[in-house]
Order: sequence, then C-alpha cells, then structure tokens
Amino acid sequence: MSRLVWACRREAVDRPPVWIMRQAGRFLPEYRATRAKAGSFLALCRTPELAAEVTLQPVTRFGFDAAIIFSDILLPLAPMGVEFAFPDEGGPRIESALSGPGEWARLEVPRDGRGTAFVAEAIALVRGKLPAEVALIGFCGAPWTLASYLIEGGTSRDHAAVRAAMLSHPDEFRRLLDVLADAMAAYLRQQVAAGAGVVQIFDSWAVALSAPSYGDFVVPALTRLLRQLDDLGVPRIVYVSGGHLVPVLAALPCEVVSLDWRTDLAAAAAVLPGKAVQGNLDPAALLAPPEAVRAATRAMLERVPASGYVANLGHGILPATPIASAQAFLDVVREPR
Amino acid sequence: MSRLVWACRREAVDRPPVWIMRQAGRFLPEYRATRAKAGSFLALCRTPELAAEVTLQPVTRFGFDAAIIFSDILLPLAPMGVEFAFPDEGGPRIESALSGPGEWARLEVPRDGRGTAFVAEAIALVRGKLPAEVALIGFCGAPWTLASYLIEGGTSRDHAAVRAAMLSHPDEFRRLLDVLADAMAAYLRQQVAAGAGVVQIFDSWAVALSAPSYGDFVVPALTRLLRQLDDLGVPRIVYVSGGHLVPVLAALPCEVVSLDWRTDLAAAAAVLPGKAVQGNLDPAALLAPPEAVRAATRAMLERVPASGYVANLGHGILPATPIASAQAFLDVVREPR
Repeated sequence: MSRLVWACRREAVDRPPVWIMRQAGRFLPEYRATRAKAGSFLALCRTPELAAEVTLQPVTRFGFDAAIIFSDILLPLAPMGVEFAFPDEGGPRIESALSGPGEWARLEVPRDGRGTAFVAEAIALVRGKLPAEVALIGFCGAPWTLASYLIEGGTSRDHAAVRAAMLSHPDEFRRLLDVLADAMAAYLRQQVAAGAGVVQIFDSWAVALSAPSYGDFVVPALTRLLRQLDDLGVPRIVYVSGGHLVPVLAALPCEVVSLDWRTDLAAAAAVLPGKAVQGNLDPAALLAPPEAVRAATRAMLERVPASGYVANLGHGILPATPIASAQAFLDVVREPR
Repeated sequence: MSRLVWACRREAVDRPPVWIMRQAGRFLPEYRATRAKAGSFLALCRTPELAAEVTLQPVTRFGFDAAIIFSDILLPLAPMGVEFAFPDEGGPRIESALSGPGEWARLEVPRDGRGTAFVAEAIALVRGKLPAEVALIGFCGAPWTLASYLIEGGTSRDHAAVRAAMLSHPDEFRRLLDVLADAMAAYLRQQVAAGAGVVQIFDSWAVALSAPSYGDFVVPALTRLLRQLDDLGVPRIVYVSGGHLVPVLAALPCEVVSLDWRTDLAAAAAVLPGKAVQGNLDPAALLAPPEAVRAATRAMLERVPASGYVANLGHGILPATPIASAQAFLDVVREPR
C-alpha cells in the first residue's frame, strides 16, 4: 500500500507523503512540449495516451508519492449538456451560463460513464505504468464550485451571481447541488473502477461563503456525494478554501481535509478529530528563492500532526514556479528528522 | 453629533446608523447620468462639483446616516508617481506594475496634499450641503491592498505575485507598506481637515493572507497609519475582508472594524472588546427579491451587539442591485424594535 494511503488512514509512516496540487502541467517544460503536441488543452485532456503522459511526468521527475490524473473539473459537465471552452487566456468559459432554476432543471446525471470514458482510459494507462507504492488520485469539482462556474459563466472574482442565485432560489439551488453531487459521485466511482486508489474533491471557491451558508447549503450536498463512495474503501480527500470553514467540515464523511495556505495546520487538525489533514504551503512561497522555500517548508512542518498528515501546497502550484523551488519544497519534506 | 459617530463610540443610539459601501455610484440611475456628463470615471473623481454631486445622491434618495466621498483608493497614488487607468471594462490597471524592491524604493510620500486637493475640495462642498446629523466619511486603501494593486498591476484573482514579493523581499516589503501607510495617513488628515468627520480604511484584499502573515506584515503598517490620526479625534473604521483575520485585529488602534459577509457579527464582536463593528449583509443578498432581503436583514440584526453597531453590507453594493432591494434593507434597519 502506498505511503499516501497509509497517511490518509492516519497510520504511521516513515515520513509524510508528498505531492503537489496541479503538479502535472503548467510549470513543467516537458508538459508544455506535450501540450504543444496535443494542439489544445481539451485535446490533451481527451486523448488518454497524452493525458497519461503528462500525469506521469512529475512523478518521473520528482518521485512524488502520488500521481493525480491530468484533467479539469469541468470535463464531466459535458455529458450533462454543458458547453464550455478553454481559451488560451482568461480561464475557462461556460458557453451559456445557467443563470436560473429553469436552466438548472435541465441538467441530468449521465448514465454509465457516458462522455468521460477517456478519463477512465487515461487512469488505466497511468496505473499500468506507476510503481505500486505510488498512489493514483482521481478527482472532481465539488458541487458548490461547479455551480459557481455554471452560474457565473466562468471563473468569477466575487462569486456574487452564484450567491445571489442560492439566496433567491434556495430550494432549486439545493436540487442543483444534489444533481451535481450525484453526477460527481458516479464520475469518481468510474475513476476508482479504472484504477484510482484515492479521490480528491476540489471546493476551490468555498471561500466565497460564510460558515453558516456553507453548512446549510453545501455540506449536505458534499455529504451526499461522499456517502456514495462509502463502499469503495478508498481515502476521500476534500479540499476546501477558506480557513473560517474548517469547523464546519468536522462532520463530513471523508478521511482527509486539504487546507488552503491561509489556514493554520495545527489548529485545523485540532478541530478535525479522526481526520488527516493535507497542505498547505502558500504556492506563492515557491516563487521565492530556494533558501526561503526551505525555511517556509520547515516552518510548516513544525505545525503538522504526528500522524495523519500529507504534505502539499495550500492551492495549485503557480505556472511561474521555478523547478528548483519545487525541488526545495520536496527535499525538506523528505529530510530525515 | 451624528448617529454614526455615536455608534462608532459605542454610545447609545435610538437605532443603528446605516450606510452602504459604494452607495455613491454604480447602482443608481442618477449616478449614471452624472457619470455620462463627466465623460470618464477619473474626470468625475477629479471634478469637485461632480464628485460632490454623486456623493450626495444616495443621501438625498435614501436618507442614509452617512455620505462617503466619491473617489477611488488608487487616486492618492498619482502624486507618488504611479500611473493608472480605469478602462470601462475589467477594473483598474496600473500602467507599470512595481514588481520589485528597486521600483518600490522610488515611491515617496507626497508633501502638503499635493495631487489630491480635488478630494479636499469635494469634501468641503459636500460638508457644506449635508445636514449636521449626517456624517461625512473620508477613506483610503490600506497599505496591503494598495501594495497588491501596485505589484499585481491591477485587480488580481489570486494575489500570488504580491504574496511572493512579500515572502521574497520581506524587509523591503515592510518599507513599502510603511511608505504607503505614511502617505495614506497624510491623505486622511487632508480629508479630515476639509470636513470629513469619520474615516474608513479599506483592506479589501486582506483575505489573501493567513492570520500570522497579516499579523506579522500588515498589522504593524496599519497601526502606523492609524496612530498618525490619534490626535484628530475622528472615529476610525477599518474594513478587513476574511473572517479568519478578526482575532488579529483586536489590537488595532481603531474604533470600528467593518466585517465582510462571511463573518459572524456576534462572534467577531466578542473577540473585539472595546470596538464597534460594522456590516455585514452579503451584497449578493440584495440581488434577491425584497422579501428575501428583509428576512436576511432581520437575521443579521439578531446577531448584532447591543451598542457599538453600524449597519452596512459586508462588501460594496453590486451594480445590478435593484433600488427596491436596497430600500428594503434600509427599511428593516430603521424599523422600530
């Protein structure tokens, strides 16, 4: 079993497992070469051989304890009838935003993995090439974050439209979150069936909500999603941005909470009994010179629990990150202590 | 003395004073008419008669307890040598971002209100027309938020460049924050001399930092700014986004902390002894129908302290807000109870 899975289960490990959110892509020159070969970001995601290649690249270069399948959280929305584009600049764009309940009601949970088979194929390819001790992580977007993309029409700065939609149509919005939860549960099951041994759910825009709103609207949908994975026996990691939300997460049926860079690891672990924590170096810290990265990583490691800890960043690695700085982070995590 | 000043001093008032962040502008048709007359946003800010006109519009229409001078936090950077533009789409843009310490070192504190006299003139015009019981608020950006604009080159989604700059050049970054603090202190003194009876400092991008980083880098600069206003005797309001930062604010030398929509008013007031709190209805709640606005406002008012409370939103009012919804918010605050 992999070091990552042991740590997710809060078993003793020789050192913290380590991987980096968005480790496949963006900051790696070998990724940019494969990306150019694919022609477009979507073609890269949808060609299993190429998606597998970029998934493996950071593991080959750095020897991470986990690979995470190269994909995007919007892709499983396509078989639900959502059209989107990934322009070279400015983030993804939903071609026709689903602004109201009438449009939300048309979303359906796809059957039988229709429309996402390429992800399962890529996972099977990666699993066949990874050493047994390296975990393979499948992932999806959380219902709230997906709802934000659908309603805002893309990446939003203030998420005001999705909050307004939630407050204006609370019952219909809950149904929207439930449909997204059911679709993502099926999608993660498909990934696990194909060979993923760990799953992570990204609630990247959680930070836009107050703790009572998050508890009222989002936690029930996340719970619904997670419960549909109960029988799989794979560790479930939930990434939630916004340190003010940590206490609300204690009741989630997941093994690991992944914390953003604003959150104190020790304080979070203290209010999440029975759960492992993952994170949370500021990705911006990796834009500093390697010596500063080493100091920041050592400071982070002083705040981690004795068991049940996965080393990572507090958000996706930034495209401008120097290779040497990522290496410095890794080296410190792997230092004997 | 105005109801707002009494509440800032935590004295008894007949009902909470109420105003709305960004009440002058954007969502008002009479604003859009004056804006069209001015030709450009910057021309509007820099023409005292027109800036005074739009400052007074929301008070005339709604009878708020305070006016806030119409301006923008970037304007006092012009006499420091910073060039910026306000394009019609996409937020303000710094013409040449100050990415490193060499560029930061060239920023100087302007002398004698040079370059911001038009704000003082507009304040004097407004004060001359406002009833005595309506407070007039002067404002500025907080050093951290201004540093983010300078280093990111505009409104940033992730604020990674400014965090990286802070972590890479901590000593020089502290000096940058200090220069901005001194410049903003002088700018607020100029506004008070012209007739502002309350000041507010906006740290809109505080949410991008962890509490330890905020305490280490930002609180000293904010304290330096606020201390330079000690002798003026006007209430000092500090708006800080990000509920996780509230405990760090207890030691700030200010009378009022303005809370964002994610923050629980009662819990925040409990950890801010001796301070009044302002806020914090979600601006997105005002995009819902008036009945939902009334319910949300009543729920907010159940969480407020018995004294030392100023009703407001938790962030600036959104341009799409219906007049009737803003009116519903106001009506509930003014209900006898």
